[in-house]
Amino acid sequence: MHPIVHESRALPADLVDALSAAFGNRFHLGEAMRTQHGQSEAHFAPMLPDAVVFAHSTEEVVTLVRLCVAADVPIIPYGAGTSIEGNTAAARGGVSVNLSEMDAIVAVNPDDLDCTVQAGVRREQLNEHLRDMGLFFPIDPGANATIGGMASTRASGTNAVRYGTMREAVLSLRVVTPDGREIRTARRARKSAAGYDLTRLMIGAEGTLGIITEVTLRLHGIPEAISSAVCSFETLSGAVDTVVQAIQIGIPLARVEILDDVQMRAVNRWSKLDYPELTTLFFEFHGTPAHVAEQIATVAELADANGGGHFLWSNLPEERSKLWKARHEAYYATVNLRPGAVGWATDVCVPISRLAECIGDTKRDLEAATLPATILGHVGDGNFHVVFSIDPHAPEEMVEVEAINRRLVERALAMDGTCTGEHGIGLGKQDWLVAELGDAVDMMRAIKRALDPKDLFNPGKIFTL
Amino acid sequence: MHPIVHESRALPADLVDALSAAFGNRFHLGEAMRTQHGQSEAHFAPMLPDAVVFAHSTEEVVTLVRLCVAADVPIIPYGAGTSIEGNTAAARGGVSVNLSEMDAIVAVNPDDLDCTVQAGVRREQLNEHLRDMGLFFPIDPGANATIGGMASTRASGTNAVRYGTMREAVLSLRVVTPDGREIRTARRARKSAAGYDLTRLMIGAEGTLGIITEVTLRLHGIPEAISSAVCSFETLSGAVDTVVQAIQIGIPLARVEILDDVQMRAVNRWSKLDYPELTTLFFEFHGTPAHVAEQIATVAELADANGGGHFLWSNLPEERSKLWKARHEAYYATVNLRPGAVGWATDVCVPISRLAECIGDTKRDLEAATLPATILGHVGDGNFHVVFSIDPHAPEEMVEVEAINRRLVERALAMDGTCTGEHGIGLGKQDWLVAELGDAVDMMRAIKRALDPKDLFNPGKIFTL
Repeated sequence: MHPIVHESRALPADLVDALSAAFGNRFHLGEAMRTQHGQSEAHFAPMLPDAVVFAHSTEEVVTLVRLCVAADVPIIPYGAGTSIEGNTAAARGGVSVNLSEMDAIVAVNPDDLDCTVQAGVRREQLNEHLRDMGLFFPIDPGANATIGGMASTRASGTNAVRYGTMREAVLSLRVVTPDGREIRTARRARKSAAGYDLTRLMIGAEGTLGIITEVTLRLHGIPEAISSAVCSFETLSGAVDTVVQAIQIGIPLARVEILDDVQMRAVNRWSKLDYPELTTLFFEFHGTPAHVAEQIATVAELADANGGGHFLWSNLPEERSKLWKARHEAYYATVNLRPGAVGWATDVCVPISRLAECIGDTKRDLEAATLPATILGHVGDGNFHVVFSIDPHAPEEMVEVEAINRRLVERALAMDGTCTGEHGIGLGKQDWLVAELGDAVDMMRAIKRALDPKDLFNPGKIFTL
Repeated sequence: MHPIVHESRALPADLVDALSAAFGNRFHLGEAMRTQHGQSEAHFAPMLPDAVVFAHSTEEVVTLVRLCVAADVPIIPYGAGTSIEGNTAAARGGVSVNLSEMDAIVAVNPDDLDCTVQAGVRREQLNEHLRDMGLFFPIDPGANATIGGMASTRASGTNAVRYGTMREAVLSLRVVTPDGREIRTARRARKSAAGYDLTRLMIGAEGTLGIITEVTLRLHGIPEAISSAVCSFETLSGAVDTVVQAIQIGIPLARVEILDDVQMRAVNRWSKLDYPELTTLFFEFHGTPAHVAEQIATVAELADANGGGHFLWSNLPEERSKLWKARHEAYYATVNLRPGAVGWATDVCVPISRLAECIGDTKRDLEAATLPATILGHVGDGNFHVVFSIDPHAPEEMVEVEAINRRLVERALAMDGTCTGEHGIGLGKQDWLVAELGDAVDMMRAIKRALDPKDLFNPGKIFTL
């Protein structure tokens, strides 16, 4: 992969004056603030913006964009900073616009099962707000990310198998464009055939085509009954086949996560648990009590036929949390396999018929590695993660991890899969985007050039022009 | 609305020679063939292409595009010709490329619940092919359209409420671009965060950004049990409230259609039936036998609480067909309210909380009209159609219909709805696209200019440059 070079230059003095006048004490030049906004996961060198602005309204973002574009200065939208492919690093300096204080829930329409929120609203905040109305927003990427950031990286997570990803969850966006205008990409109707799908174009564009300031989201009623289940399997393929068969016969699994044997060992150690140290599936079922009971009975039968062990399940909130504890702590359990280690997560997604093979080949690769790594995934989508526990003082480990990651991505591409199911391209996967989509990337570049001719919106991300 | 002028000129002689050499007897200059490809619904004047080519492969489409673009001649993709906003009319002449003979089912992957088909495959053909594998493709816009055409207009139909629209149904597209290259927009993974969502950009672009030659689709298992039900309501709001409440509590309605009283009267007359002539809901439920029974019991209860009459239902195929007969014949029943009349269908989509009001206001408008018209809709999405029965020899009726349609669209826009839920913009709704999305249409134009700088791919559709 070609090296990403951090280019930056001091901001023009008149821009500094104008931003200072417009944003007062929400305009920051200090190093601590810039460092916070320029740091990414361990495997990327810090790339600091030249300034940070906390925006409080779409109108302020318009002002900021007009000032920066007039001065040829890059703008990088920033939410919670939880993305993991360097998506918010200031690769060419410029101004990081922090939207986390735009955290108003603008409207909830219970009859329409939708809501409109500012980009800085976090998903946990939204779900707390919705709970008393009997509604919830399903997309759960793990981190307590902002809704704007989740839209920008096309996030998904544990229940995409039932409820889809941000691609399906968003009805409409309010966006500030590189020419300093504010647009709304769609109305609030559930569906539309009116013109190009700008909503979906902005979702996953990582802020390179526009800055999302408001998001209108589909919501769902909190199901009457929720049950969780855990089942370990003698073989990886037994676990995957159980899920494939369940989906094929139409069981609307709300969540189904796979953890490999090493991951289960890590969790047992970290959380002092005693799960069998085998490939394990974690399920969640939503519906009426009768329908959930029927789903559980069918899946338990499928699991049994595929070499599954005891099918532990519960519909009581406390017991459900206990059953899922291993899944929730999986990442930290892996990172802490060695004291002082740092974590790095990568992700690929393949057609589900290839998932057992892809995970199996990857496991062989990990077994030969000199450092610990685990596999966990959203098995219903064919999407899985490898989490590495890296010694930050051993640069040779990073070299080794990069080689394993390269083989992982190439394996997924060879199976007609994608180099990233939900993390995005950012800085980390640009060469593989080209390997994956070839000339289609030229079409993306043409769109970028047309909408952002000066290449100022999060420049250097997804691809270089 | 500004008039759409049909501009055309004779094809350059060397292009005629080259196309004739490349396509032999699949290259047509005759008037009958050109007329067939240039005619749309009654309310658009015919706009004939200068030639018609039947393509048999993506490579042939590449050849055609390169020849036409070099000669500055427009290219209009054509499938089954069932779109209804003039989407395939040759507004500026050029070559209509008929893809209906590209009807191979390239691959079906039962384990992945997906398939890849050429653009000319029709949805009924696909479902016949899939039936023995226990799979089906759910999107049902009524007409036996081609999959490529359905992708191009972002089609949906009766079961979008459960299974989504073409936006959700397509995993990946093979597309020939205006620069004469062939791209694939995505891999076959269920989800991806890799770069801009070119798949969704092409879906609904009506052939203005690329010619779709292959489509990879999500499939579903044929449900174990299917039941249908019909229930008439004293009030429109009672019918709509029943659906809203059912969706809110999470009942996964597979289909729910609304027919107004006039539509029911038309159906009774046309098909010699004796339904109550009241607002009527037609349901379909999918699932396990127990889950379907539970869904029916709950919906019957909701219907009863909302002033619904007898809740007729059946799970036997023959009886189900009988129950749904009125829905299937609705369009023809309306058109044939007067002998010799022609039909015209329009569509809007609003947030479901505004649907009863929007239909109610529209009904009052139709009651004051001099010609018959009925309302039917995909009530779960907030999407409904008005079908007019027009005397083709009375031009004043077309003027009246256009005025009613204008008020309908403006009413939907005022409710934060869209000017088209599933028919597309084509020639018919261009001014309303601007009314709906404002400056966002400029962004669409910028994308069009970047990808098709000579404006040769289905020019004059969606917007004029």
